[in-house]
Amino acid sequence: MHWITVLRTASFRTQHLPVQFSILRLFSSHLPNQATENSEKQLSHQQNAGTSKGNLILKVPKGTRDFSPKQMAIREKILSTIISCFKRHGAVTIDTPVFELKELLQENYGEEAKLIYDLEDQGGEMLSLRYDLTVPFARFLAMNKIKRCKRYHIAKVYRRDSPSIKRGRFREFIQCDFDIAGQYDPMIPDAECLKVIHEILTAMQVGDFLIKINDRRILQGIFTICGIPEIKFERICSTLDKLDKISWEEVKNEMILEDGISPECVNRISEYVQLHGGQCLIEKLLKDPKLAQNRLAMEGLEDMKLLFEYLTLFGIVDQVSLHLSLARGLAYYTGVIYEAVLLCQKHGHLNESLSVSSVAGGGRYDELVAKFGSKRHKVPCVGLSIGVERIFSIIEQNNEMAKEKIRTTETQVLVATPQKNFLTIRMKLISELWNSGIKAEMLYKKNPRLLEQLQYCEETGIPLAIIIGEQELNDGVVKLRDVVTRKEVNVPQEHFIEEIKRRLEKHNT
Amino acid sequence: MHWITVLRTASFRTQHLPVQFSILRLFSSHLPNQATENSEKQLSHQQNAGTSKGNLILKVPKGTRDFSPKQMAIREKILSTIISCFKRHGAVTIDTPVFELKELLQENYGEEAKLIYDLEDQGGEMLSLRYDLTVPFARFLAMNKIKRCKRYHIAKVYRRDSPSIKRGRFREFIQCDFDIAGQYDPMIPDAECLKVIHEILTAMQVGDFLIKINDRRILQGIFTICGIPEIKFERICSTLDKLDKISWEEVKNEMILEDGISPECVNRISEYVQLHGGQCLIEKLLKDPKLAQNRLAMEGLEDMKLLFEYLTLFGIVDQVSLHLSLARGLAYYTGVIYEAVLLCQKHGHLNESLSVSSVAGGGRYDELVAKFGSKRHKVPCVGLSIGVERIFSIIEQNNEMAKEKIRTTETQVLVATPQKNFLTIRMKLISELWNSGIKAEMLYKKNPRLLEQLQYCEETGIPLAIIIGEQELNDGVVKLRDVVTRKEVNVPQEHFIEEIKRRLEKHNT
Repeated sequence: MHWITVLRTASFRTQHLPVQFSILRLFSSHLPNQATENSEKQLSHQQNAGTSKGNLILKVPKGTRDFSPKQMAIREKILSTIISCFKRHGAVTIDTPVFELKELLQENYGEEAKLIYDLEDQGGEMLSLRYDLTVPFARFLAMNKIKRCKRYHIAKVYRRDSPSIKRGRFREFIQCDFDIAGQYDPMIPDAECLKVIHEILTAMQVGDFLIKINDRRILQGIFTICGIPEIKFERICSTLDKLDKISWEEVKNEMILEDGISPECVNRISEYVQLHGGQCLIEKLLKDPKLAQNRLAMEGLEDMKLLFEYLTLFGIVDQVSLHLSLARGLAYYTGVIYEAVLLCQKHGHLNESLSVSSVAGGGRYDELVAKFGSKRHKVPCVGLSIGVERIFSIIEQNNEMAKEKIRTTETQVLVATPQKNFLTIRMKLISELWNSGIKAEMLYKKNPRLLEQLQYCEETGIPLAIIIGEQELNDGVVKLRDVVTRKEVNVPQEHFIEEIKRRLEKHNT
Repeated sequence: MHWITVLRTASFRTQHLPVQFSILRLFSSHLPNQATENSEKQLSHQQNAGTSKGNLILKVPKGTRDFSPKQMAIREKILSTIISCFKRHGAVTIDTPVFELKELLQENYGEEAKLIYDLEDQGGEMLSLRYDLTVPFARFLAMNKIKRCKRYHIAKVYRRDSPSIKRGRFREFIQCDFDIAGQYDPMIPDAECLKVIHEILTAMQVGDFLIKINDRRILQGIFTICGIPEIKFERICSTLDKLDKISWEEVKNEMILEDGISPECVNRISEYVQLHGGQCLIEKLLKDPKLAQNRLAMEGLEDMKLLFEYLTLFGIVDQVSLHLSLARGLAYYTGVIYEAVLLCQKHGHLNESLSVSSVAGGGRYDELVAKFGSKRHKVPCVGLSIGVERIFSIIEQNNEMAKEKIRTTETQVLVATPQKNFLTIRMKLISELWNSGIKAEMLYKKNPRLLEQLQYCEETGIPLAIIIGEQELNDGVVKLRDVVTRKEVNVPQEHFIEEIKRRLEKHNT
């Protein structure tokens, strides 16, 4: 089910709400989920202001969030779009514990390891919260001696980074990873990973995007022919990786002043890493006399050429561009690397803090599994991660601007009454509905007023109400009310389930 | 979608597998997900045997597990049944961080607080992993000043308990909670909670079950009239709670020897707590002259009477029984409490370690939110938790005994070729399938053998294959093969998507 389809249905259901909508709060004393809606605004401020009770401060830990029902409804639609894409590509799913043995994690993140959350030593093993899903996946493959696996994994990871709500950076956040492990013919799985990114970003409708692509081998070849010692490779990659945040001039200065590269070297690099383009650029680089001398660079370029052929077959080559400046932060990449960026915001609204950020990334890491297992157990891998928190921020913002009403429940029918002493009959009816698989609610009140019940439908987007009073009881019918059109019709009690099912089916098509 | 329906579909798809099934491993070199299946057995032993690489021991932390694709497929079906029940009852969902401020958790679990996982002090706040989902829910309500909320929350919780695989007790496990917060007319939400438990356990098809029910107020009344001081109430509840594990004689001894209750008192209690039954028992107790003097007990019994009336309306009263010995461990319950137990295993196979265990539980806790918030912010709550890990163990065991084959992917079509040099055409075709929303795979090999491709379908349960070779290419068709019946038919290339969609639709109905 596509994200956008779902949203449209939801908005269709609620767009005809009556004008008296705003006075509904007056009648809300027995409405199960209403107060939750009221608190949406408060929730967004929870980071800053904790309420206190005596000495007890009520807040969530720094850099983390609660998600309100409305936010969860948006998140679930995003995740369900992502999952259905992963399943469309034949992936299985696995799960691993939220913590791992500390020593298993510590070695794999270089500088960033200081951001890992450790658990207290309460006797027993030393544990840390997982930092990403890639290292646990590699551990899983090595431990179980698995040689081939196409899996997705959607789970929370933890980083003691300085949080920034504006940049969508949190200490607890969801990662959505899709990886293909196994020895296969070159660039076929790599091309599929890019296709998966393309499909997901297209389905999200968050605007135009570009997938920047490069290869660690090409980068290393360029550095070598520009005279940079191999030992500085990772360091220079990290510096280059800052190009998203700072200008090329600043990066150049940092290379000279902090990384100790000569200005001549930097100028030579500069000529290369500012290049970007498609298949023509690859052909040009393949003919570059200096690069031709570097075996690694040529390997990378040949693979890149093949990859672009596959991307053409997949029909996505127009959104992919070779960017020689793309370096990616993590140390474990060994081949193709990629990063998707949004070109501008939907509705022509360009939000600077969000528009520059990457919304997906990944690459090939052929050595990580062997690092955990025996050297004979070499399992080349390629994978991707969808930046779901950033996508969530953008879609939440778009919804707010469009004043999109989002349903937080899926309730299809409210069982209502205009009269006193109909609780037992309502309970019998609702039980029949539940037993027939129909999503139904009633107010938890012996004698609710009809107005209050109907307004609860309008407020929460319930499309149908069945109403039963003395007249209906005597006639052996229930009144079926379409909440949007307000049309009512009597249905014999013995057929009301069928009739409701018929209407809901019609409603869904 | 019901759990059992899904399973039947899966088994239908694979029951006609050919005899040469067992030799398939020979051809598995380019099969994306196959090795994962091979490793199912290894996974079940991962708790004990870690593999080591140099000094690095490859294992998961004590009391935790990885879940293999097959296990995840079972778990997802269980969770999807539970979620659809929660949604059928109109619940929203929320999420909270995996850790909370340490001081917020520490106070709420009495004795058990020593089992809480703490995070290391790395500067900043002192944090602990959540112990259940109830306390975070109460914190959420108090912090956001929410007065009414019907929510479900499915997430992992953490307890440094001594793990026992046999008893399905782990240090990291999923809780599935459904709670109704708010001031409503008596026993209506409570009855719905029991209906939810009943619906879920019925849908799971794990055999007959009984929901034991009691009320903390009735228990306290009984203790009072038997001469037990109020201060010992919680302690005696804990001792009573052991009745599932030890005999009544042993419980009596513990009350006398460890809790310091006189043998006369214990005998008086004994008369009451061994009682169990339905509405007749409630009527009998309401007329009990000694209980009649205790206001709290009478309140509890009147509510119990009302609750049984509601359960009759919901048609579930036969599976519910008042058990005066039911006490529940947790301290925060204030009214109705309940626990569902399986009466025996499916297939007449009685597994002792599992048959006695509770598979759902819950109750009313009217004071917990006020403990976090201001006293004026009183939010009565009632809720339930489904013991999904135990249900998972039972269903996994049942599947193994029934030798049920479970699909770990949902792939509908494999794009295959009998000839060399058809990679580009396969890629074009698969891209069309993906773009049409069809779940499709191909082998990541330039020139795979046809046998290998067809056997991959049979092994992983893919129902359809499209086959393209020179003949088909020249004729402008693709061959469509039904994997189970092996029937093949040529379809014009411009219609193959429609034809596949038509077949898949037929397959699903």
